[in-house]
Amino acid sequence: MEKNLTMDKLVSLSKSRGFIFPGSEIYGGMGNTWDYGPIGVEIKNNLKRAWWKRFVQESDNSFGIDAAILMNPTVWEASGHTTSFADPKLDCRECKTRHRADNLIEAHSKGKVNPDTMTTEEMESYIIEHKVACPHCGRFNWTPIRQFNLMFETSRGVTEDGQNKVYLRPETAQGEFVNFLNVQRTMRAKVPFGIAQIGKAFRNEITPGNFIFRTIEFEQMEHQLFCKEGDDEKFYNLYKEKAHSFLLDLGIDKEHLRFKDHDKLAHYARAACDIQYLFPIGWSELNGIHNRSNYDLSRHQEFSGKSMMYMDPITNEKYIPNVIEYSIGADRLMLAILCEAYHEETLEDGETRVVMKFHPAISAYKLAVLPLMKKNHSEKALELYHKLSKEFMCDYDESGSIGKRYRRHDEIGTPFCLTVDDETLNSGTVTIRDRDTMKQITLKIEEVEGYIKDKIKF
Amino acid sequence: MEKNLTMDKLVSLSKSRGFIFPGSEIYGGMGNTWDYGPIGVEIKNNLKRAWWKRFVQESDNSFGIDAAILMNPTVWEASGHTTSFADPKLDCRECKTRHRADNLIEAHSKGKVNPDTMTTEEMESYIIEHKVACPHCGRFNWTPIRQFNLMFETSRGVTEDGQNKVYLRPETAQGEFVNFLNVQRTMRAKVPFGIAQIGKAFRNEITPGNFIFRTIEFEQMEHQLFCKEGDDEKFYNLYKEKAHSFLLDLGIDKEHLRFKDHDKLAHYARAACDIQYLFPIGWSELNGIHNRSNYDLSRHQEFSGKSMMYMDPITNEKYIPNVIEYSIGADRLMLAILCEAYHEETLEDGETRVVMKFHPAISAYKLAVLPLMKKNHSEKALELYHKLSKEFMCDYDESGSIGKRYRRHDEIGTPFCLTVDDETLNSGTVTIRDRDTMKQITLKIEEVEGYIKDKIKF
Repeated sequence: MEKNLTMDKLVSLSKSRGFIFPGSEIYGGMGNTWDYGPIGVEIKNNLKRAWWKRFVQESDNSFGIDAAILMNPTVWEASGHTTSFADPKLDCRECKTRHRADNLIEAHSKGKVNPDTMTTEEMESYIIEHKVACPHCGRFNWTPIRQFNLMFETSRGVTEDGQNKVYLRPETAQGEFVNFLNVQRTMRAKVPFGIAQIGKAFRNEITPGNFIFRTIEFEQMEHQLFCKEGDDEKFYNLYKEKAHSFLLDLGIDKEHLRFKDHDKLAHYARAACDIQYLFPIGWSELNGIHNRSNYDLSRHQEFSGKSMMYMDPITNEKYIPNVIEYSIGADRLMLAILCEAYHEETLEDGETRVVMKFHPAISAYKLAVLPLMKKNHSEKALELYHKLSKEFMCDYDESGSIGKRYRRHDEIGTPFCLTVDDETLNSGTVTIRDRDTMKQITLKIEEVEGYIKDKIKF
Repeated sequence: MEKNLTMDKLVSLSKSRGFIFPGSEIYGGMGNTWDYGPIGVEIKNNLKRAWWKRFVQESDNSFGIDAAILMNPTVWEASGHTTSFADPKLDCRECKTRHRADNLIEAHSKGKVNPDTMTTEEMESYIIEHKVACPHCGRFNWTPIRQFNLMFETSRGVTEDGQNKVYLRPETAQGEFVNFLNVQRTMRAKVPFGIAQIGKAFRNEITPGNFIFRTIEFEQMEHQLFCKEGDDEKFYNLYKEKAHSFLLDLGIDKEHLRFKDHDKLAHYARAACDIQYLFPIGWSELNGIHNRSNYDLSRHQEFSGKSMMYMDPITNEKYIPNVIEYSIGADRLMLAILCEAYHEETLEDGETRVVMKFHPAISAYKLAVLPLMKKNHSEKALELYHKLSKEFMCDYDESGSIGKRYRRHDEIGTPFCLTVDDETLNSGTVTIRDRDTMKQITLKIEEVEGYIKDKIKF
């Protein structure tokens, strides 16, 4: 990551190089939605695969699911979202704009006051005492603070009069909880075991517009570990460690990561912390780990009337398992990975190259196949491109000077560029140029596949 | 596929073996949503990966995207969904239930009449003429037919009074169309080129409840080819062929697939057909291929004011490209794959085994590692399991007789079972049992990884 990296720089690179575009852009956008472009979708999919490999495939006792976004509305009563998943908002009586009280306080205090620990009354007092003005019109004439629920509401209409209110899930977690019994039974799972899920969630909130850091539609990657009372602290620490290792293994500098305990815990929570990343907007949450006691399953037992008791097959002990939740936003991870990969380097000729130093497992294209001269080498290059494309994502690029093509692939983070030249035709060798070192090596054609496959392991 | 396979049998197997559970089941479900369980999510992900590999990775001039579900509402005016994406519905005045007119006609005529080609008036006449009764109460007292829009509506609320109506996208296609310019520009793409996407869509419809055949929330896999006027017929035929090959390569019997041209074309369409699969409910649409002229991009040019013109870099010709759309439902493909894989076999001892004969690339677990005797062989088996789990999805199973464990893995479609026995400890060999033939071979431990990797290629 570069010291002078700004969010604007990333947005601009993302747009010009096909990482991420503003959603519905030709219609002037759609407030805080983003569309992943051809390069971005590959990187995001690679991140999701790497996560799934680590937390499902290689994890002894973890099982994946993919639950529906639209859930029975009682789920949100059990989880507490219907009553208390709300933002404190207030209106400016002068210019009629609406604002989040906590954001106003955080901005006014320059981050020195943490509004998360304040009650509505305390926030109101702060705003009055400090005469916090409307950031839109500069005047000071607020309505009282009111709580607005953040769930998107829609209705499942079968009959006009009998419409049922349903919600777009504001988190994926409940999908894991309501499937606890199904997964335990069908997988004959023994506690401790985990349920993992990757999926979309939606929150109808006022967002500060920090690119993909916080969006109204986002994707979560989540692992819920079900364990026995008394084991929870051990697993809480284990998942802190596992979450941290995953980020380091993706190539994130450990100096850009820090643990941050929550100042205020929910009444049922035993412990909760975030791993923060040093984004261009400052240290901010990248993922969270929560020791949630047996609150979630107990609530579902209460609201569904179904027993969430687990019986230990050896001790015959019966209990409702505790939950250790580990949750990371796929989009937020994508943003961290973009930040971390971004480098500007001054070359010998004084030119600057922008290079995205992704872990090769995460890069969109693993290899760019470049004929040195279009006329003489493209046939052989295309043959290689078609062969290797069956094994991993490759690009074929024949337009512009070889230097320009290298720059283009540096900017999208392609770790290796293969050049087909006269030597390829004469002696069956190709040169492979490394994105980060810009050094070149010579390989026999038949060695290329193995060489790249070895480098892109995660 | 078995001749006597019913949807109920599949639902039951899916629930007992962890393929697919009813959504929000502990709360009595949530009308026509389904949650993919640990086995189902792996299979569905494998299907999505196989599709992406074929239609993006290995496809020369195709680019993936992942657009937001919530789009600018003008998109749906341009696409025509706001005004004409509706179902013809009518109410029974006696029992107050609501029904789809087209479904009533199709059921009454036992499929002999195709309501898709009828106007509202024609449907009304048919129902009156044939005295089609209410399937709920058996009486005949209908309201007139009215059109109900199928889009789920929600609102992006920033201020209470200024709420904006937005929709859950009813199809993914518009994501590809609105990103045509962005993809063309950033990828320097030359027509003909394609944009592919996998993503969720939502339709607020009355569904007949055929498991995952038609659900209110579903996932589409879609490829839009942008081509020049005059080339459209060639590419329409090419994508019919590619779509068909993909299904055959997944192991679907060609006798279970047929092309079906649409009886009625939209005014802008040049040609449209489905590939149907012989589901337990009869021949039904599995995927569609449409020659849509330049309707889609023209509409977006008209509604967005942005030029959708493409300039041919060689001829300098300017035109709005035509679109060949190929779209397949991931859930519907999942259903076809479940149907196709399902086999019941009578064994020599007279027992019946249920075996899911998935293509090994699609199976959830590629390999089950089974210690013959828990006591003596589990340590070595676990070591192997941990090593191979880094390469592909494995299961470790030590409970029950070896025969029972084979049956369990037959039912979830694990293509290979590896047994660790005394020979493994003495001479470093394992036996690999093939799911379909039930034959066993002996391999050296170090040969296993390569053997399986070779079998699971797609």
